[in-house]
Amino acid sequence: MDLVKKILDHYEKIWVLAKANAVLEWDSETYMPKGETKERGFITSKIESMIQDLMTDKEFIKWVEQLEEKAENDFEKGIARVLKRSIYYYTKIPKKELEEYNKLIVEAVRVWEDAKKKSDFNRFAPYLEKIVEFKRKFAEYLGYKYSPYDALLDRYEEGYTVKDIDPLFNRLKRDLKKEYERIKEIWHDYHWLENEPYNRERMELLNKTVLSMIGFDFNHMRLDVSAHPFTIELGLYDIRITTWYHKKDFRRSLLAVIHEFGHALYERQIDEKLWKTPLQGGVSLGIHESQSRFWEIVVAKTKEFTQFLEPLVKNILKIDADSEDLFKYFTIVRPIPIRVESDDVTYNFHIILRYEIERDLIEGKIDVRDIPEIWNEKMEQYLGIKPKNDSEGALQDIHWSLGAIGYFPTYTLGNLIAAQIKYNFPDLETHIENKNFATIREYLREKIHKYGSMYEPKVLLEKSFGEPVNEKYFIKLLRERYR
Amino acid sequence: MDLVKKILDHYEKIWVLAKANAVLEWDSETYMPKGETKERGFITSKIESMIQDLMTDKEFIKWVEQLEEKAENDFEKGIARVLKRSIYYYTKIPKKELEEYNKLIVEAVRVWEDAKKKSDFNRFAPYLEKIVEFKRKFAEYLGYKYSPYDALLDRYEEGYTVKDIDPLFNRLKRDLKKEYERIKEIWHDYHWLENEPYNRERMELLNKTVLSMIGFDFNHMRLDVSAHPFTIELGLYDIRITTWYHKKDFRRSLLAVIHEFGHALYERQIDEKLWKTPLQGGVSLGIHESQSRFWEIVVAKTKEFTQFLEPLVKNILKIDADSEDLFKYFTIVRPIPIRVESDDVTYNFHIILRYEIERDLIEGKIDVRDIPEIWNEKMEQYLGIKPKNDSEGALQDIHWSLGAIGYFPTYTLGNLIAAQIKYNFPDLETHIENKNFATIREYLREKIHKYGSMYEPKVLLEKSFGEPVNEKYFIKLLRERYR
Repeated sequence: MDLVKKILDHYEKIWVLAKANAVLEWDSETYMPKGETKERGFITSKIESMIQDLMTDKEFIKWVEQLEEKAENDFEKGIARVLKRSIYYYTKIPKKELEEYNKLIVEAVRVWEDAKKKSDFNRFAPYLEKIVEFKRKFAEYLGYKYSPYDALLDRYEEGYTVKDIDPLFNRLKRDLKKEYERIKEIWHDYHWLENEPYNRERMELLNKTVLSMIGFDFNHMRLDVSAHPFTIELGLYDIRITTWYHKKDFRRSLLAVIHEFGHALYERQIDEKLWKTPLQGGVSLGIHESQSRFWEIVVAKTKEFTQFLEPLVKNILKIDADSEDLFKYFTIVRPIPIRVESDDVTYNFHIILRYEIERDLIEGKIDVRDIPEIWNEKMEQYLGIKPKNDSEGALQDIHWSLGAIGYFPTYTLGNLIAAQIKYNFPDLETHIENKNFATIREYLREKIHKYGSMYEPKVLLEKSFGEPVNEKYFIKLLRERYR
Repeated sequence: MDLVKKILDHYEKIWVLAKANAVLEWDSETYMPKGETKERGFITSKIESMIQDLMTDKEFIKWVEQLEEKAENDFEKGIARVLKRSIYYYTKIPKKELEEYNKLIVEAVRVWEDAKKKSDFNRFAPYLEKIVEFKRKFAEYLGYKYSPYDALLDRYEEGYTVKDIDPLFNRLKRDLKKEYERIKEIWHDYHWLENEPYNRERMELLNKTVLSMIGFDFNHMRLDVSAHPFTIELGLYDIRITTWYHKKDFRRSLLAVIHEFGHALYERQIDEKLWKTPLQGGVSLGIHESQSRFWEIVVAKTKEFTQFLEPLVKNILKIDADSEDLFKYFTIVRPIPIRVESDDVTYNFHIILRYEIERDLIEGKIDVRDIPEIWNEKMEQYLGIKPKNDSEGALQDIHWSLGAIGYFPTYTLGNLIAAQIKYNFPDLETHIENKNFATIREYLREKIHKYGSMYEPKVLLEKSFGEPVNEKYFIKLLRERYR
């Protein structure tokens, strides 16, 4: 089909610029000299605007619209769908407002950093108010089915609305509460390994050894260090992850590596036929997170995996912990105010809380100024704890200052889907026990990775697992693991 | 002037893409996973072609032509001059031929690598023949004054022709021969430090310490490791250098660092007013090389500098060498067949030899097949040595396989200009003795760096030193140093 070729030829430029920007971003998070920030920001934003110009080229838009009508197979339909989404965003929101918004964001992040340092929500509030105002306007431009929040959520998790999330999260909240009450009665909330110092070079070697053994392809992948762990795809043949080092509590570094490995594997196992097309790339944040969490909380926290780790920890890290220690250390349950350091049981309460607040903000049911109070009330209600101050309360996450409203729910979707995959995968524990990680990688490739963005998340889940996202598997995992 | 603004606005995109490509290149030489080569090559060549499209935009060309006529000051004249040169190259050579040529180059480098490994010039010869053929055609497209070689040389050293280089190199050859004959009678050709092993980490620390002390701005610069040392400018506020490590013979690593520092300082000290304009960047290879060689052979090989180094080498590298040892070690004179490992006295014979061969090739006076014989004869004549085989003879350098014909003379121009600067700079040795490197940096900034590409090399030399490039200063340096 000549039309597809024309579209892909034009898209190739967009792809090339996006990859260039990814390398610039990776560099700025890892090796860029500290004094370079401003110039680099200028360069990446210019490239971003070139991408936008190419995406909104009138001829190109016409072709995509034609393809939408004429698409003959899943590949073509996928291309039309994914491109339409990008075009839609750039064309529905007036360029001028998007520029104003982007300027606001740059300042908002700065102010949030300052406000967090001083634990002063009121300092950040006027900026968040402006962000919410922009987001509500954007939602109107973009259109939505039930709630303006849907328009925002859809950017991160295509096809999902409050009508999906509300009932799902409500059931989860109910069942998770029960599980949590049960678990906290019988489970440990501390382990001596949390305070065990480690040697940085040995830790690096342990990380690399574990990565090698689970299938990290160092010929096409790298591990570096950054302020916060992340994965970035610089091409189908160049995927990079980072981790961090804290001198003690080695699970933070190791589990981050395993988590990012899951993201990286997804990008690496996308079908080569999708290379340079709009379908080369994970389909959504939720599906992506399901891949990282699958390795981090489903695979790595089994007793089989801690048995696999025991000799590595003993011999490489020179820390004398057996597999039972490791299992206990990895599964501590302790409610704390900070989301990113939370355990797997309480984590989703942090997300539900954020979801409820941001949804109500966008729907105009609450005001920005009310957030700290609501935050603390919900924290008390869900986890029985109270943040000492805003800095470990409503100011802890960078997301809202970046304008990422509608992003949080994807973390919980990822957790739920990760557990869902586990119960669809026969004999997972046996494969881990046999260090047969290749079979696990193949399973993920066949069920999810190879499709890239060809199917929207709901369709992909239906196709691969025969049902929509379902919280019962995650609850089942907690029931089986914490007993 | 509205015209300048229009030109600079358009040029900004070219600049942005060039910087992105520079980051991609730096990455591919330092940290890129080994398996990534093909995809990365695709990305950089696509960006290169976007740059070419922007540079040959018809409206843009019209503006540049208008500016050429109307330019009112050195800034505007410089912009018109520099842009005209790029436009000229892209528009005079048919795009199709340039593409064919680029494809040939990719293959030629591969074949050259193989031929060098097998020390078989005949394997490479057919490719070099095709390259020479292309270059002769390009010279006709580009036009020239005296020799088709001028058109090629001008790409690397704007404004220079065989009528400049022939008499200069002939005088140099004559005087250098005399100096060399004199020096080899009285000078040492070996030093024990050549075989002294070093500790890699200590060497890295020594490199960084020396860099810090001579004024490397780690806030805007980095030092990394690569197969061959290089400098790359990723922006006015982000300049990076690399070095290498060989386990012994530490001057190779240290002097490479000092050499690259010279290149980096040039790019870093360009006037901020030239940021993002076509004038932000060193003006030519010869002037650039004069900056690196100034630090490497003029500054670092003085007795004052080796006195400055002595405690650092003793304390950091833990090698017990005094300043006299270091001076002798840095100034060994020993004729060898390999250019890049040659001493400062014999080095320029290697360049003159290459220049004479490539000039005659382009002028059709000799054939590619004759190169090895001519090479070996000249080697015998200039230095009294014979390469064992083509691999350490005519195949040793990558340049010709890359199509870089007209490039070699700039190395010698750099050496000569470096010495010329020295004798224009009062009390250089005293400043070195006082570790007063800031004054040296300021001198270079005022005389050369700040102008970027505003003046073509000949004009710049006239303006800053009142005369054209002159070989007598280099000869004087040899006379004073080697006695």
